[in-house]
Amino acid sequence: MTRKKILVVSAHPEPRSLNGTLASFAVEELRAAGHEVRVSDLYAMKWKAAVDADDFPDDTGDRPLDVLTAQERATLTSRLTADVAAEQEKVRWADAVILQFPLWWFSVPAILKGWIDRVFTNGFAYGPAVPPPYTEGALGGRRALLSVTIGARESAFSERGAHGRLADVLFPLQHGVLWFTGMAPLEPFVVHGSVDVPAARFAAARSEYRRRLAGLFTDDPVPFRSLTTDYDRDLRLLPDLEPKGTNGLDLHLR
Amino acid sequence: MTRKKILVVSAHPEPRSLNGTLASFAVEELRAAGHEVRVSDLYAMKWKAAVDADDFPDDTGDRPLDVLTAQERATLTSRLTADVAAEQEKVRWADAVILQFPLWWFSVPAILKGWIDRVFTNGFAYGPAVPPPYTEGALGGRRALLSVTIGARESAFSERGAHGRLADVLFPLQHGVLWFTGMAPLEPFVVHGSVDVPAARFAAARSEYRRRLAGLFTDDPVPFRSLTTDYDRDLRLLPDLEPKGTNGLDLHLR
Repeated sequence: MTRKKILVVSAHPEPRSLNGTLASFAVEELRAAGHEVRVSDLYAMKWKAAVDADDFPDDTGDRPLDVLTAQERATLTSRLTADVAAEQEKVRWADAVILQFPLWWFSVPAILKGWIDRVFTNGFAYGPAVPPPYTEGALGGRRALLSVTIGARESAFSERGAHGRLADVLFPLQHGVLWFTGMAPLEPFVVHGSVDVPAARFAAARSEYRRRLAGLFTDDPVPFRSLTTDYDRDLRLLPDLEPKGTNGLDLHLR
Repeated sequence: MTRKKILVVSAHPEPRSLNGTLASFAVEELRAAGHEVRVSDLYAMKWKAAVDADDFPDDTGDRPLDVLTAQERATLTSRLTADVAAEQEKVRWADAVILQFPLWWFSVPAILKGWIDRVFTNGFAYGPAVPPPYTEGALGGRRALLSVTIGARESAFSERGAHGRLADVLFPLQHGVLWFTGMAPLEPFVVHGSVDVPAARFAAARSEYRRRLAGLFTDDPVPFRSLTTDYDRDLRLLPDLEPKGTNGLDLHLR
């Protein structure tokens, strides 16, 4: 087995929670398998969630803050704040990134959204200035895994569930954030009904997570299409692919 | 015209930005039309984004922090922090809520996610303890409008766009947050290509926004299904509705 580098980003205020436990479990498992692991425990780090003018100390405030431009300038001139630069270094270092979080309001907790908003800058994670080979995204060659706990029962996120299929609810993260920056997202690892997880179910979840971690570099990623060959210049799916009309977001699967 | 109450929640670090301008414009228009308007400018308020133990000062830390339970207990005993209680009072007061934000990584900025995470507590926005008549959600009777600026061009969010249909990308907000809590979300008001908005396009956007604001209480909301009559107890769509298989998230439209 090849020794790999893995970044675990964890976003729960309580280390003794199910999320805290799963994050620790992943770290132990991966280290036991011989990998190098680094952890960003966002609550422990008191991660600053909001993008604001303090992120761009070189900008004097004479002109209005344009976040996209300011992020690009700070990235390309290596003038990002130390906390953001440190996280970018970790992502760059990693062969795989695991995001461990509870699903709050059908997305990541604010503190993790703030990690994405602040770390995945124009010039680092995407954008015209990303250095070549920018073919399938700036962070190409990396795998990514969402490890998610969900309070609601599984049926609510099933094919006909009221909250939408989980794959659709997570599309903005799986496809928008991970795929778009070039990473290869795997099927998420999910624990449903996380409000109450009795010992037997927890043991089963742990076994399943162990299996998923063992397959981190060998399991097939979600077969999203290719940004460079399957879409036109206006980012529309080419007409000869799935010509028969839409089938929701599955349109973007090969 | 009936005088109504409207809450505008705004989430951009730069008041002189397109978002800042659209927020001010909405306030002016609605006041000129005779409505009462209150504003939550999250950056100006230095809104705390992350749910953490400081939100629950009554919890001593003897036991692990269980966010769902802690939020419910604090809500039902009126022991929420002052900032959260103030926002809940505004939402309760409002006949309509407008969320003004830039689409960052296919969702709301972290600071606005943190407003949702912290204000929409178990016991306030949903949950078994919500006082009757809890029929179509705790915040029933209120309208909601997302006013969104998007850097990418419209084609990328079109029917076959690489980022997914905008309705699908916004589903976690429109359906997950707004519909699920009982509000009636309208079609979002969107300005695409917001990186560069020349004067003529800005004037057109303003006219269109004026029209949308004028229809805030009369336009048809998005025809999402009824949580109480169209789903079974496991929150699955009843079998006689759309029996022919999935059509993505449109399954949840009447």
